[in-house]
Amino acid sequence: MKKYILVNVFILFSFLLKAQNQNVDSSTIRSIFDFVLTQSECYKNLDYLCNKIGPRLSGSDNAKKAVDYTADLMKQYEFDNVYLQEVIVPHWVRGDKEKAEINVNKERISVNVCALGGSIATPSKGLKAQVIEVKSFDELKSLGKEKIQGKWVFFNCPMNPTYINTFKAYGEAVKYRFNGAVEAAKYDAVGVIVRSLSLRIDEHPHTGQMQYGEDIEKIPAIAISTLHADLLSKKLKEDSLLEFFCKTSCKILPNVLSHNVMGEIKGSEFPNEIILVGAHLDSWDLGTGAHDDGAGCVQSMEVLHIFKQLGLKPKRTIRVVLFMNEENGLRGGKKYAEIVAQNKEKHLVAIETDDGGFTPKGFSIDGKPNHVEKISAWKSLLGEYGLNDIGTGGGGADISPLKGQGVTLISLKPDSQRYFDVHHACTDRFEMIDKRELELGAASIASLIYLIDQYGL
Amino acid sequence: MKKYILVNVFILFSFLLKAQNQNVDSSTIRSIFDFVLTQSECYKNLDYLCNKIGPRLSGSDNAKKAVDYTADLMKQYEFDNVYLQEVIVPHWVRGDKEKAEINVNKERISVNVCALGGSIATPSKGLKAQVIEVKSFDELKSLGKEKIQGKWVFFNCPMNPTYINTFKAYGEAVKYRFNGAVEAAKYDAVGVIVRSLSLRIDEHPHTGQMQYGEDIEKIPAIAISTLHADLLSKKLKEDSLLEFFCKTSCKILPNVLSHNVMGEIKGSEFPNEIILVGAHLDSWDLGTGAHDDGAGCVQSMEVLHIFKQLGLKPKRTIRVVLFMNEENGLRGGKKYAEIVAQNKEKHLVAIETDDGGFTPKGFSIDGKPNHVEKISAWKSLLGEYGLNDIGTGGGGADISPLKGQGVTLISLKPDSQRYFDVHHACTDRFEMIDKRELELGAASIASLIYLIDQYGL
Repeated sequence: MKKYILVNVFILFSFLLKAQNQNVDSSTIRSIFDFVLTQSECYKNLDYLCNKIGPRLSGSDNAKKAVDYTADLMKQYEFDNVYLQEVIVPHWVRGDKEKAEINVNKERISVNVCALGGSIATPSKGLKAQVIEVKSFDELKSLGKEKIQGKWVFFNCPMNPTYINTFKAYGEAVKYRFNGAVEAAKYDAVGVIVRSLSLRIDEHPHTGQMQYGEDIEKIPAIAISTLHADLLSKKLKEDSLLEFFCKTSCKILPNVLSHNVMGEIKGSEFPNEIILVGAHLDSWDLGTGAHDDGAGCVQSMEVLHIFKQLGLKPKRTIRVVLFMNEENGLRGGKKYAEIVAQNKEKHLVAIETDDGGFTPKGFSIDGKPNHVEKISAWKSLLGEYGLNDIGTGGGGADISPLKGQGVTLISLKPDSQRYFDVHHACTDRFEMIDKRELELGAASIASLIYLIDQYGL
Repeated sequence: MKKYILVNVFILFSFLLKAQNQNVDSSTIRSIFDFVLTQSECYKNLDYLCNKIGPRLSGSDNAKKAVDYTADLMKQYEFDNVYLQEVIVPHWVRGDKEKAEINVNKERISVNVCALGGSIATPSKGLKAQVIEVKSFDELKSLGKEKIQGKWVFFNCPMNPTYINTFKAYGEAVKYRFNGAVEAAKYDAVGVIVRSLSLRIDEHPHTGQMQYGEDIEKIPAIAISTLHADLLSKKLKEDSLLEFFCKTSCKILPNVLSHNVMGEIKGSEFPNEIILVGAHLDSWDLGTGAHDDGAGCVQSMEVLHIFKQLGLKPKRTIRVVLFMNEENGLRGGKKYAEIVAQNKEKHLVAIETDDGGFTPKGFSIDGKPNHVEKISAWKSLLGEYGLNDIGTGGGGADISPLKGQGVTLISLKPDSQRYFDVHHACTDRFEMIDKRELELGAASIASLIYLIDQYGL
């Protein structure tokens, strides 16, 4: 009987403790959102990053300025251990603004294009040739060398608009940008024109990285705006012998020493268990990298800023990492994982925010099923902030090299509808950011990290 | 035994039938989204409404043009019974652009204001007086006539940024815009300056309707941009005796005959059971009414267009109603409900879309608990399209007069973060609309209507 009473007292005590914890957690998360929505500086910081610094392609002067600015900001915020991690990065430059024309029936129609990242330039006088339009690599193969050689290959492969998650459509179509030049060169094409990866029809070309293969000839690769992709396709139907002229002057300069930028709040109980929050500091050169990924950078720094400002003392070490060179090399992410392995550092979890500064909807988790289950159960606390979409899925590019070391990877999932309107284009500017949406993302990650820090995984 | 087998066969048959229905419903909803995301004309139609017609304040020429345009479009889409319903509407006009200045220490600082809808004008030479800033009606009352008489009352009452749903913040703060002039006039104020209802700090004033009381003196009411509300507050702290000058020339002209615009697809089995989908065609005059509520109008018409284009034959009658005069009178909504009562028409449900053309998140339902339960159960079909937020809540202003007749009211719930950035301001323009977000809203309502039509409530 005594044992029975003791067991019941224990159960009651556990129940009350759990209820009390739930209350504390709920009010802490509320205070995180209240702070961010009234006092956060992340919108102002992004304004600086985009408008005072600007585009931040790896190897550029601006990338260096961004390293200095964010390191200074972390020091100003009094994070522990603000330091730089050396990373050797590639240095591709666009050169002069690209010029392109459709030459048909003595008419010259200007179209908007941009060189793809990593591409070689056209000859200095430009490159003029006929065009063969294809809808897939299979079609390219079936046409064969006879029909392709000496021509531009025009990969007119739109993103699928019927997917509700636009990242799925990007994932399917990006191979033409990434591998188009290699595939077309196999059939002696002289260059590739890739339809911009956007779901809008507009005049802005979208850049992004491409790659060359070993032992395969390097040919120039450009992206054409969706509006002009449609135009080129139409003109080709009218006259399949039309010529396309393009002049680019991009080139690869010698590698440059650059840096990941890091700061921490040391854990009070388990300082050697690291919770990482990160984003990438480099951006493409056409816009100012507002959504991709300035938003993620200021959100990541804001997470630690929130902990400091609210006096939340984490048990584990929370580390912010602003990675260099996600866009055209992933050198920062690779270097970081290498050092983690060398130093045998223990990462409990790594969280990335690189899907744009839009209204957050949840998290995707790449980890053990019980981790996914535990985080999903926190919907009871996070749901009222719109964070209902919690499930399995990818982490993020920069943190992906940590997967080999068994780290649970998590990605913030914002609403995806508008991301590819601006992704890698001149339109990815600060004005496209909504202050509240940006702030809600920072508060969402901070709340998740608070829970992970409290209860582990 | 025989009976036992028969019962089991019946259960199995019901189960299979349900599974089959679930499959048909799932593929129909998929086809609705596929159609809208690839072939919808609602974005193009909104472009016309905003950019070829423009702002559509009740009584204006543009409001008439919008009636004609949408009626023609419904005929072109071959809806059944396209017709206009007469509505007498008020006709308030803004007159010349407003002028306002803070006069302090011989300095004249221009600030951005706009007259509130329904307000009388200042004297033709303008109105100059001292200013008393208040944070609430309670503070106004406690100050009393002695401190208020002869002055402008400045209601500097910001929307609460910590609410995740911005409509809640609007709901709390709108009383100062709506009733501020009545309350201030009780203490002999000469006019009211109301902080714009926006969560952004920017230079754009936001208009909106105000009202006067019977037997209470009418005084001019204006909204000031949030940026200049902050400035005025700061200057008042420096010099509480500063003067505020404002000149407006708005006025009320005689009532005008206008119209609700209606179209239908007749039901094949229950033509007398009506499923209504609606929005309001009128807009404020500062922007072009893109989110408020051009988006809702083109979405509502698109719903019927989808049914026509996909060859879906509804059992019940689906009726689109574009209401006139939601912004400053609700005359269209009231008239519609009056006629419904007169004709003893049976409405199964009325759905409104008037919360902006942003990514849809779900529906709020004002109806019987079993209706809410039935619609919530459809999350299994609607969840993959992001429609997870289904629960109790308000319908919409235009359909609210139907509540007295026991109609279940439903409102489409889009993401609310950006709505008050542009609401009733010059920034509510077509460029602020994302094509996919707009389309997803139309597909969401069409899918819900498909299910309601199939299974009733």
